Amino acid sequence: MDNDFLTDFHHVATFGATKNNGVDRQAATAEDKLSRDWFSRFTREQGWQLRTDSIGNMFALNELVPGAPYILLGSHLDSQPLGGRFDGAYGVIAGLHAAKRIGHQLTETGVQPRYNIGVVNWFNEEGGRFAPSIMGSSVFAGLMERDRMLQVQDLEGTSVAQALDAIGYLGSDPGPEVAGYAEIHIEQGRILEREGIDLGAVDYSWYTQKLDVEVLGEQSHTGATAMADRHDALVAASKVILKVHDVVAGFEPESIVSSVGRMTLEPNSPIVVARRVHLVADLRAVDRETVVEARRVLLEQIAEIAKEHEIRILVNDFDVRDIQYYPEAGLELVEKVGADLGVSVRRIRTMAGHDSVAMNRIAPTVMMFIPSVDGVSHCEREFSTDRDMLTGLRALSEVGYRMVCGALTADVAESGTRDEESLVL
Amino acid sequence: MDNDFLTDFHHVATFGATKNNGVDRQAATAEDKLSRDWFSRFTREQGWQLRTDSIGNMFALNELVPGAPYILLGSHLDSQPLGGRFDGAYGVIAGLHAAKRIGHQLTETGVQPRYNIGVVNWFNEEGGRFAPSIMGSSVFAGLMERDRMLQVQDLEGTSVAQALDAIGYLGSDPGPEVAGYAEIHIEQGRILEREGIDLGAVDYSWYTQKLDVEVLGEQSHTGATAMADRHDALVAASKVILKVHDVVAGFEPESIVSSVGRMTLEPNSPIVVARRVHLVADLRAVDRETVVEARRVLLEQIAEIAKEHEIRILVNDFDVRDIQYYPEAGLELVEKVGADLGVSVRRIRTMAGHDSVAMNRIAPTVMMFIPSVDGVSHCEREFSTDRDMLTGLRALSEVGYRMVCGALTADVAESGTRDEESLVL
Repeated sequence: MDNDFLTDFHHVATFGATKNNGVDRQAATAEDKLSRDWFSRFTREQGWQLRTDSIGNMFALNELVPGAPYILLGSHLDSQPLGGRFDGAYGVIAGLHAAKRIGHQLTETGVQPRYNIGVVNWFNEEGGRFAPSIMGSSVFAGLMERDRMLQVQDLEGTSVAQALDAIGYLGSDPGPEVAGYAEIHIEQGRILEREGIDLGAVDYSWYTQKLDVEVLGEQSHTGATAMADRHDALVAASKVILKVHDVVAGFEPESIVSSVGRMTLEPNSPIVVARRVHLVADLRAVDRETVVEARRVLLEQIAEIAKEHEIRILVNDFDVRDIQYYPEAGLELVEKVGADLGVSVRRIRTMAGHDSVAMNRIAPTVMMFIPSVDGVSHCEREFSTDRDMLTGLRALSEVGYRMVCGALTADVAESGTRDEESLVL
Repeated sequence: MDNDFLTDFHHVATFGATKNNGVDRQAATAEDKLSRDWFSRFTREQGWQLRTDSIGNMFALNELVPGAPYILLGSHLDSQPLGGRFDGAYGVIAGLHAAKRIGHQLTETGVQPRYNIGVVNWFNEEGGRFAPSIMGSSVFAGLMERDRMLQVQDLEGTSVAQALDAIGYLGSDPGPEVAGYAEIHIEQGRILEREGIDLGAVDYSWYTQKLDVEVLGEQSHTGATAMADRHDALVAASKVILKVHDVVAGFEPESIVSSVGRMTLEPNSPIVVARRVHLVADLRAVDRETVVEARRVLLEQIAEIAKEHEIRILVNDFDVRDIQYYPEAGLELVEKVGADLGVSVRRIRTMAGHDSVAMNRIAPTVMMFIPSVDGVSHCEREFSTDRDMLTGLRALSEVGYRMVCGALTADVAESGTRDEESLVL
């Protein structure tokens, strides 16, 4: 049973495999198609129903109780460019094997479940090719507009609709009715590893937001134009990047992270001083106040840089995502399952976004982490051990089993945001 | 006569015109074709011979002395992306009108010239689309290999050969035999304007070199990866860019310029810390020693940045161009012509590269500058007055006339580099 899972996990890692043990399987590419075809085959082999909806989400559905809603397990099979084998794929493959076990367990015990069990492969969680990220689950949860997302283009001008159609996964099936959702994922940080704990029960997601920064200088000759006569957008942008990096130093350790990951310059010629730099800064913290304060400091510093270089710098907020709390009943369920299985559990926040953050808006949702070696992710060196993956699979199977039997749906106390602000996507 | 020149100049500025008074006429584009077609028409209307060689250089040849070599006037009609109307185009159009005047003057005076007169539109001086710059004249002068240059690709993967063929200017004509070369160009700096001088006689070109810098960090998640666990290539690269900018402060004012104009990052995703940044730094100074010293300082600083971020940074020298001295006889000729015409002249160095730098390697070469307003160039705001252009045209006509009559070819004292180092392209 464990071997079947490991065999499948390591087989899926061959789709889009890179030479340094990673995968490059961006959303709706030929490599993504390979993993989707594998998901379809697995589903058919179990005799489950396969549905693909109109944003490319794939559902493997095992109907146990005719007409009842589904408990969904899952994550995503797409990856970042030169990403890791574990991010997303672990959750989908563990979901498939957990659903299989749950089916067998119900048959063996003769227990009558309350819900059906299904597994989902969400479209484009990574957002590396098509922004924003967490696209498929957000559309499913009604947080993003399907028609707008289908028109989103990659850097080559290919739309989501065209890309999905090209690989044969622009479906038209309705998604299932959902009574609950559970996802397991690698931590992508080093807290579990540092503390030697098997499983994280995710209690809330960090407050995150992005800043769209446009630095407008003046194009000039790199050779002939005197230094004093230049308004170099790249020099000013470099200062912005360093300020974004340094802003975290003013806060509690590990309470905030910041970065610039995307940047383009124009005209990008070796002998022309740049006229325009466009970049995206990413701020994430344990609470809203920290992000708001970091943003305030940055806006001040950016205004100073603009003044110093006699340059215009336009800054816009976007992709603001408020803290999302996962339901207390789900946390307690994970802790109970951990105790029963002899698996150590601690509560943990997630700095990264996940499909479960979107699903948590519409259904009782459980999110679990297994340890990441060295805490690195979104890179080829990303790693988790077979042992930890199998421990997580056992926990997910048990959590899913109890959810199918109605564990979470009677008494969901808290869910979603705690203050009035809503998720802005 | 002056009006004909101005009419032509402002007409050519409509090819690839941008909304802010500039031009976007990169090498071998549809816009470049328009200016080339105009050059061809002008040539045919004069009854001159048109030749296009196998790297796209165009020669308009007026044979006055059967079989004799040519004095060539010229520059380039291609521009930077969103570049100015004057850079290059002024020299070609002034060259055409000067050649016309020289022909008439010879007819009127009955003087028997020693050489023929021709005008050249060099291919791809700018290098914005196809690197390196100064391509057509360097191939003509034997400093770059034609076959290698024909294979150079733009960012879309189109080769020089394909692009020239697509616009119908991949020729097969032999270039003319050259006895001398004269070029007039905008200064692209503000020395002439500041001193109120009409004409610069260019005595030498700055020592220039580029540094190819590859910053190799580690890709990771912008949200989940703790700041301490990152090896952010973009943060390190931003520090490199600021060091490149600041290095000039350690030298005499206006003796050195530096910049980074081209940069790419990978994977360039808003939620991924960059694993690799590639950038090109450009160093130019009045002498070799200054560039060598600035490079030494930079390499030390870059090594420190690499150490601080636990990142590899690879630096390679390329496009090293030694100081080129223009012949003393040519400088004296310009000064004599200036005195005869009542045009003020000063000797001036060029910080930018020009086709004349390549031609100076194979023939007695004269390079002249007219004032640039505000010293800006390679941008839409680049400007020179009609009055200054007409003064330059008079000077070029007279210099060209005297060269056709043998002014420079008897007594060329000094030409080319003064030390042993050769031009590395």
